[in-house]
Amino acid sequence: MDLNSDLGEGFGTWRLGDDAAMLDIVSSANIACGFHAGDPRTLLETCERAVARGVVIGAQVGYRDLAGFGRRFIDYEPEELVADLIYQIGALDGLARAAGDRVLYVKPHGALYNTIVHHEQQAAAVVDAVRRYDPDLPVLGLPGSAFLLLAEDAGLRTVREAFADRGYNPDGTLVSRRSPGALLDDPAQVAERMVRLVTDRTLVAADGSTIKIEADSICVHGDSPGAVGMARAVHDGLVAAGVRINAFAGSGL
Amino acid sequence: MDLNSDLGEGFGTWRLGDDAAMLDIVSSANIACGFHAGDPRTLLETCERAVARGVVIGAQVGYRDLAGFGRRFIDYEPEELVADLIYQIGALDGLARAAGDRVLYVKPHGALYNTIVHHEQQAAAVVDAVRRYDPDLPVLGLPGSAFLLLAEDAGLRTVREAFADRGYNPDGTLVSRRSPGALLDDPAQVAERMVRLVTDRTLVAADGSTIKIEADSICVHGDSPGAVGMARAVHDGLVAAGVRINAFAGSGL
Amino acid sequence: MDLNSDLGEGFGTWRLGDDAAMLDIVSSANIACGFHAGDPRTLLETCERAVARGVVIGAQVGYRDLAGFGRRFIDYEPEELVADLIYQIGALDGLARAAGDRVLYVKPHGALYNTIVHHEQQAAAVVDAVRRYDPDLPVLGLPGSAFLLLAEDAGLRTVREAFADRGYNPDGTLVSRRSPGALLDDPAQVAERMVRLVTDRTLVAADGSTIKIEADSICVHGDSPGAVGMARAVHDGLVAAGVRINAFAGSGL
Amino acid sequence: MDLNSDLGEGFGTWRLGDDAAMLDIVSSANIACGFHAGDPRTLLETCERAVARGVVIGAQVGYRDLAGFGRRFIDYEPEELVADLIYQIGALDGLARAAGDRVLYVKPHGALYNTIVHHEQQAAAVVDAVRRYDPDLPVLGLPGSAFLLLAEDAGLRTVREAFADRGYNPDGTLVSRRSPGALLDDPAQVAERMVRLVTDRTLVAADGSTIKIEADSICVHGDSPGAVGMARAVHDGLVAAGVRINAFAGSGL
Repeated sequence: MDLNSDLGEGFGTWRLGDDAAMLDIVSSANIACGFHAGDPRTLLETCERAVARGVVIGAQVGYRDLAGFGRRFIDYEPEELVADLIYQIGALDGLARAAGDRVLYVKPHGALYNTIVHHEQQAAAVVDAVRRYDPDLPVLGLPGSAFLLLAEDAGLRTVREAFADRGYNPDGTLVSRRSPGALLDDPAQVAERMVRLVTDRTLVAADGSTIKIEADSICVHGDSPGAVGMARAVHDGLVAAGVRINAFAGSGL
Repeated sequence: MDLNSDLGEGFGTWRLGDDAAMLDIVSSANIACGFHAGDPRTLLETCERAVARGVVIGAQVGYRDLAGFGRRFIDYEPEELVADLIYQIGALDGLARAAGDRVLYVKPHGALYNTIVHHEQQAAAVVDAVRRYDPDLPVLGLPGSAFLLLAEDAGLRTVREAFADRGYNPDGTLVSRRSPGALLDDPAQVAERMVRLVTDRTLVAADGSTIKIEADSICVHGDSPGAVGMARAVHDGLVAAGVRINAFAGSGL
Repeated sequence: MDLNSDLGEGFGTWRLGDDAAMLDIVSSANIACGFHAGDPRTLLETCERAVARGVVIGAQVGYRDLAGFGRRFIDYEPEELVADLIYQIGALDGLARAAGDRVLYVKPHGALYNTIVHHEQQAAAVVDAVRRYDPDLPVLGLPGSAFLLLAEDAGLRTVREAFADRGYNPDGTLVSRRSPGALLDDPAQVAERMVRLVTDRTLVAADGSTIKIEADSICVHGDSPGAVGMARAVHDGLVAAGVRINAFAGSGL
Repeated sequence: MDLNSDLGEGFGTWRLGDDAAMLDIVSSANIACGFHAGDPRTLLETCERAVARGVVIGAQVGYRDLAGFGRRFIDYEPEELVADLIYQIGALDGLARAAGDRVLYVKPHGALYNTIVHHEQQAAAVVDAVRRYDPDLPVLGLPGSAFLLLAEDAGLRTVREAFADRGYNPDGTLVSRRSPGALLDDPAQVAERMVRLVTDRTLVAADGSTIKIEADSICVHGDSPGAVGMARAVHDGLVAAGVRINAFAGSGL
């Protein structure tokens, strides 16, 4: 099973999250590309650290919105979005190359991630951008999203993602952040859920029912001390259960 | 002889120069990379047009300064500059790839171009960025500049540039823009100078003396109707003199 | 009757529209505030020119989106939008003060203008920003919009705007830019429409019916040679019909 | 004696320093203005908190350089710098007004602060910007700097600043950050130095000699837990020595 996390999300003097700790835990690093976060120097250093630890580099692409950290929906024209995304993937790929590896997958960030669960035009733009940059790059997204469905139709390899610290509705969607049960905070419980997800392909939903979830990668967070502890618990729980943590994408070396 | 020009220098709704006209004249397009000018959609379209006309794509890298159009010196740390430049080259290379070609050379823009004539630390940073991105990429610069000397030392291919519409001092440097004779405005005279430069490797300097200038590429401008006319005159004058206009860098296709 | 136009919409080296020509035509200048367009130097010079010609300065506030020229909807949190707008009004007011006058009204730009016709939360944020900055500042908007209704409720002075070069539906809304009849291009016809609007408070809608339109200001554009000619025709037509062109807001001097 | 500190220096999701703690310590808040740091929402909230605690608001103006946090010299044209600074002062003044107070002084930030110690053209531009915005606003700067000398000549009120945690050369300049002794880290020693500065107008320089320093305000930092502790120590040491902490600028209320 792959563990992925968002990294390189500082900007200039501003830091976010404990990237060093997370690079010891995850197998795939979703590295920001400069549009929602990530100045080039931070990104290059993050790529170098990922390479040094054998962690695979993915391009975490987002809206052009530093002030909003890419968390605000922006009503892009499709042609603008395609170009903005190719630009970001290419930029990070250049830095990854300078660090001795390559971008090996693409994961949309924030409001773009959430938008393309349903917004077909923007989902198609993301698919188009990846396909035009390199049709061999896998994409990471929510199972059942418009994005992954369109990506499959376009012949891209799709990687289905589960969230370690999020509650699920009975239909397999995430509990809204505005509702109770959206965020789980007990590391032991979360680790146990993820072991069950991997070994049994099931999760207990917010209403207590047991649901089927197919996932190829688990997203863990590192933007608070508690988050790192939980990510570590998920990692150690999986290893203790005999699950091997390794990236879904092969190293480019 | 190669003819190069700065292209893709609009941003969003703002346009600059007549790129379509210039793509019919030049063999090499120095396409902006988004830091001094160039939103990704404009850049992608410019790459596509260059590819359609067989014009070679170069990365015109600059300081992060949209408000100043990259024309203000910025006292970067070398590590910041290296990363900013790799980011830009990679971004444009991604767009060029989506357009069916690749970035085939690098030319610094504006204040960065002028700074690295003398500023060894920033010159070394540019060399380092290109070398780390792809040591096979040629760099375009001023003959005798710290930049080209350091680039040669580092094993990069260097391409020496002359400016069609600029006056020269007897020592081969450009007449300062603040002095009389800095800018030439007679297309016929400029065309004749460039024919002589190519066929005889000499130019008449501002003081009337004849000087030796070695150039592998001639820079022409397209940011005003007069500029396009002059670029056209240079092109036609060279062709009439039997000079073949072709890019110094081979197509990546 | 007041004539207003969008001015100061260049950015750095990039120019947009013929501000000098428009300042001879209009009585109110909607000057950009730096978030969708307008670097401070351009804005200061535009304020100085407006003051020199006795044209009243208004703050044309927008989303933080230089790359999209403020024409893309952004899903702001209300608190973010309030603060972004106060910041913009204050910034332009500072430049207007340095030029010898003050900001005397506020007009939202682009996607923000269109959004707050219906989007109550963002409309309320704009109202809140103006009220918190200076409750005596009038606001310019579309008659019947959520924005003007909420502004009235909050005790702001509202100024209803008509568009010289746009077609109207029978219900008084604008014909969508995607439909035929959205844009009018005959200066004589447009001038005649505006005379009738001012003298008779009626317009002929796209279906040929005559509708009532109450307007306190007419918006004219200056971003193309044709646009300036049309603005001039509207101005001259009104003057010939005995209409006095003067600003709705008094000079702050 | 006045205590000042840099506040509001986050941007969007990124935080910097413990503003809440510092507002309990200082009498004057140098609040960022959005060009080197500070999104409008953060700035408005910081203004509101300053007003709630009776801390005076100053505009901490800087170069347009979010990626470099305003710490890189930029070779501005004077007209550009004047306009950029008026824009920033006006923007923060708008937010301060919405918070119930006004900007009551101006302090340049980072590379601009250091540049105008010697760079007369940029120093004159800062003076010009303040004078054009409001000639009654005091300016905070380094004693003996070109900036304060030109400000005095222009009739501005000048406020001389000492740095609590910095070593001094025998000539009264600061020890370079690249030299040993640049930064002091013992809170008790720093507090004692500042008491002596206030009561005796002397400091012990890096070479052990005793020098005269005239200061109207002491700058303390809050960007690390240690920094806040040191600021607290300076505050408490001064109070214990009978020094009253109060702002040099009167409240605008």
